[in-house]
Amino acid sequence: MAQFVNAKESLVTEALDGLLATSGGKLARLDGYPHIKVVYRAGWDRAKVALISGGGSGHEPAHAGFVGPGMLTAAVCGEVFASPSVEAVLAGILAVTGEAGCLLIVKNYTGDRLNFGLAAERARALGRRVEMVVVDDDIALPDLPQPRGVAGTLFVHKIAGAAAEAGESLEEVAAKARAVVGKVASIGKSLDTCTVPGSPKEDRIPKGKAELGLGIHGEPGVEQVNFIGAESAMGIVLEKLEPHLGDGKRVALLNNLGSTTPLEMSVLAHALAAAGVAQHVIGPAPMMTSLDMHGFSVSVIEVDDAELAALAQPVTMAAWPGMNDVVAVPVTPLPDGLTPIEPIPSANARTRATLEHVADLLVAAEATLNALDAKSGDGDTGSTLATAARALKGSLDRLPLADLTQLFPALGNELSQTMGGSSGVILAIYFNAAGDACANGQTIHQALREGLRRVSEVGGAQVGDRTMIDALAPALEALDRGLAAAAAAARAGADNTAAIHRAKAGRAAYVPEQNLRGHNDPGAEAVAILFEGLAEKLGV
Amino acid sequence: MAQFVNAKESLVTEALDGLLATSGGKLARLDGYPHIKVVYRAGWDRAKVALISGGGSGHEPAHAGFVGPGMLTAAVCGEVFASPSVEAVLAGILAVTGEAGCLLIVKNYTGDRLNFGLAAERARALGRRVEMVVVDDDIALPDLPQPRGVAGTLFVHKIAGAAAEAGESLEEVAAKARAVVGKVASIGKSLDTCTVPGSPKEDRIPKGKAELGLGIHGEPGVEQVNFIGAESAMGIVLEKLEPHLGDGKRVALLNNLGSTTPLEMSVLAHALAAAGVAQHVIGPAPMMTSLDMHGFSVSVIEVDDAELAALAQPVTMAAWPGMNDVVAVPVTPLPDGLTPIEPIPSANARTRATLEHVADLLVAAEATLNALDAKSGDGDTGSTLATAARALKGSLDRLPLADLTQLFPALGNELSQTMGGSSGVILAIYFNAAGDACANGQTIHQALREGLRRVSEVGGAQVGDRTMIDALAPALEALDRGLAAAAAAARAGADNTAAIHRAKAGRAAYVPEQNLRGHNDPGAEAVAILFEGLAEKLGV
Repeated sequence: MAQFVNAKESLVTEALDGLLATSGGKLARLDGYPHIKVVYRAGWDRAKVALISGGGSGHEPAHAGFVGPGMLTAAVCGEVFASPSVEAVLAGILAVTGEAGCLLIVKNYTGDRLNFGLAAERARALGRRVEMVVVDDDIALPDLPQPRGVAGTLFVHKIAGAAAEAGESLEEVAAKARAVVGKVASIGKSLDTCTVPGSPKEDRIPKGKAELGLGIHGEPGVEQVNFIGAESAMGIVLEKLEPHLGDGKRVALLNNLGSTTPLEMSVLAHALAAAGVAQHVIGPAPMMTSLDMHGFSVSVIEVDDAELAALAQPVTMAAWPGMNDVVAVPVTPLPDGLTPIEPIPSANARTRATLEHVADLLVAAEATLNALDAKSGDGDTGSTLATAARALKGSLDRLPLADLTQLFPALGNELSQTMGGSSGVILAIYFNAAGDACANGQTIHQALREGLRRVSEVGGAQVGDRTMIDALAPALEALDRGLAAAAAAARAGADNTAAIHRAKAGRAAYVPEQNLRGHNDPGAEAVAILFEGLAEKLGV
Repeated sequence: MAQFVNAKESLVTEALDGLLATSGGKLARLDGYPHIKVVYRAGWDRAKVALISGGGSGHEPAHAGFVGPGMLTAAVCGEVFASPSVEAVLAGILAVTGEAGCLLIVKNYTGDRLNFGLAAERARALGRRVEMVVVDDDIALPDLPQPRGVAGTLFVHKIAGAAAEAGESLEEVAAKARAVVGKVASIGKSLDTCTVPGSPKEDRIPKGKAELGLGIHGEPGVEQVNFIGAESAMGIVLEKLEPHLGDGKRVALLNNLGSTTPLEMSVLAHALAAAGVAQHVIGPAPMMTSLDMHGFSVSVIEVDDAELAALAQPVTMAAWPGMNDVVAVPVTPLPDGLTPIEPIPSANARTRATLEHVADLLVAAEATLNALDAKSGDGDTGSTLATAARALKGSLDRLPLADLTQLFPALGNELSQTMGGSSGVILAIYFNAAGDACANGQTIHQALREGLRRVSEVGGAQVGDRTMIDALAPALEALDRGLAAAAAAARAGADNTAAIHRAKAGRAAYVPEQNLRGHNDPGAEAVAILFEGLAEKLGV
């Protein structure tokens, strides 16, 4: 599978330099590329206990993303899924360790233990005070003599990090780290393996199955279980964790192993919260990933008040998602006003006659407009308008005909319900905006123009875009000079659309040019027919 | 492709509830599921201008993840890739809009424009002050009449959000939003399409190609271009953006479209920083995703000082990665002490004789130990030790034989170089730790035991785990009683390993039980042979 890399050899060093270049100078690195890849806090003055972690790369944001005040002092990074060398770890130790000493936080893999362990000895021989904790939080295999270190390591970083930042001694910081290691339990689940750069992806997990108890290096899980959905997947994971947990206050860390979408992670968070396994939660977020693995892991720890406070303490690193209380979803009632208030019907003979006439004109134009639309669209403009017109005639007894301020929005709501689709929404916007203008004291002509302005703003169409606006805009401009002038302007505008070969808005934007040539836009034509008919009936 | 969902119908509502349950009460929602999905700031008092955004889901953390002080007041969420209804938007407006009014921030898609637009009109009819801006930052098609709204929308959220939080008026907030819309340009690039829940994944992008100018709904890009690496991919994107940008201060937003690994995103960040296109950067981070799309987008805007300050202002939402200056990678020299100081050679006849004898014993045992190892391993234990022993004999003139404090670490460094692998590291840890103990005033016997303690701590092996420790630990315990006692204890311990069928540490942990039965562990046997040979030569 293709990936956004340049060369496997430079992948990790480029990625680290990318992180550093976009971290605003908060991170620095040692001049040891390609062999020594150590990222550390810029400006670190060695006055406090240094916290050093690391291991193979491919678990980002771990570990370099957690370097900063309140968490790690330095991250020693190996190549993808490969332990850093003894020299690299030693360089990290020597670079950041002062009188207060340093704590190495190591995940339980043989290579990491040995390389960090020997580096610790060599640093001690050089007079540095070095302690080391090995995190073995993975409970996938209950009787595994050497459980792996996985995402539970983040608890160590944060709790020991807060202690170190508070100026506690090496012994105190190490004791807190060891206490965390003794309590934290983690397990992962995935629907797919990960893609190691430069290697073909293993196709290990069959359809309908998920792998439980996998590691963060693509190594096979303990078992393949049936996958029937997110809730069940989370249930199985929590069931495995439960025997390892104390009964006190618990914090869960919900980790994205790589390519699980935020939507899925939130669905899993919903299942986690519903299960009530923990009172506090970190994430969901990618914290200790396995490249692009489509999976998640849950780590849970029972905490005392001091540990809880340490986990809650904010840090500035973007990779740390913070801790939150797990809460019942706060739900508030819907606001009033969602259902349009049915206006009180009122009578006005002239308005009624005008609306009836408009409706009749549109019903009469059904076939003409359909035929026109067939040339550039799906041939239903006439029917859509006629259907709405018939419904309008049937609704006249319910409308507030005597009050334009009320009538306009009522017409808009009526049309949006009977026409449906985009056209209905556009007409609803038109009449609601016109009603709004009327309510603000504008004249009927001004209100009609305001409706157009809003439709144009919302729909994005202007004169010249081959829409009904090409007829409506000139008609409304001319309206102050009488209906005949408006009708003439509408007709000119509609006829002009036949020459617009490139539609810029509306659905005609997707129609080939040759299909538009020589035909009026059906919407503009409908407007022209309307104004012509009204002018004829109602006079100049 | 399987995903961590329960049912397509409940995907978005469960995900939103998952977000809310794990947000510690900072977010609330309206009681309108499944139709009305509105997430808003808990405790919002309507005193300031409300900012409302939203649209189809599948772009998480946008938009609900950006709800909070300094960004959005509410997010109105549709189903995956589907616009929310007019009623849903109206509910959002009515729920959070007070006297100060509200600004709708809408991405330029017809459905969103119309539904947000009509909701705005209906809210105005109910007396609310509502402004709306439409974001059209996508520059994929230079002459597209209706450019899409993509990740550049985040700039609007942040800059308008800071203005609203500062108590500016609706007119001021809307003007700032429109200024951003007028300046921001975005384009995306992807190596694969996205997986829409419940639909098969489209296989559109051939091997060796990347799609340029795609949208955030899996719609095809403007063109498929050759993909030769991350740097070139970023170069093409920046080349497209350049004509749209001003010459002033620029901020780039590097967005992960979904499943691009943090490692790849950092490589892309490296290329972005190196190109010098912007002085400030937001990300890399997933901000406006397209489900699990393996791609990225870059948005760039030229900013004035006020806009830069607004973007820099910290917010508490974990989804917002913050803005940083783009910096030259801070590189510092490697610390001193990485190269072990060559000890000054010194002579001691007895120590020299002992070491020579140890080496001879191991060389003599080569075949025996290889044969033993062949029964449970790869048959090279004897050769590994013999090779190291021969090298040791050749190095005696260079060693500080007269000073044990120096000799121990020197032996460790020598062995780690000549043996290589885990065994070399373990012995190096052993002798470095012993040297450290000598330096701290311990006796030679104490120092040898301290070496074992450290090896056990680092390697994780204990007595009974079928390693060399099974012979070494009893031998060192017995050493105060003389070499003969130590030799006897080592022999008993080594012979005892033949009965240990289940190895708990070291490589024998991976060997089937039946292969271990009845054979001594070769490491333990080597220790026994050593002590027996030393006792014989050096006497009791």
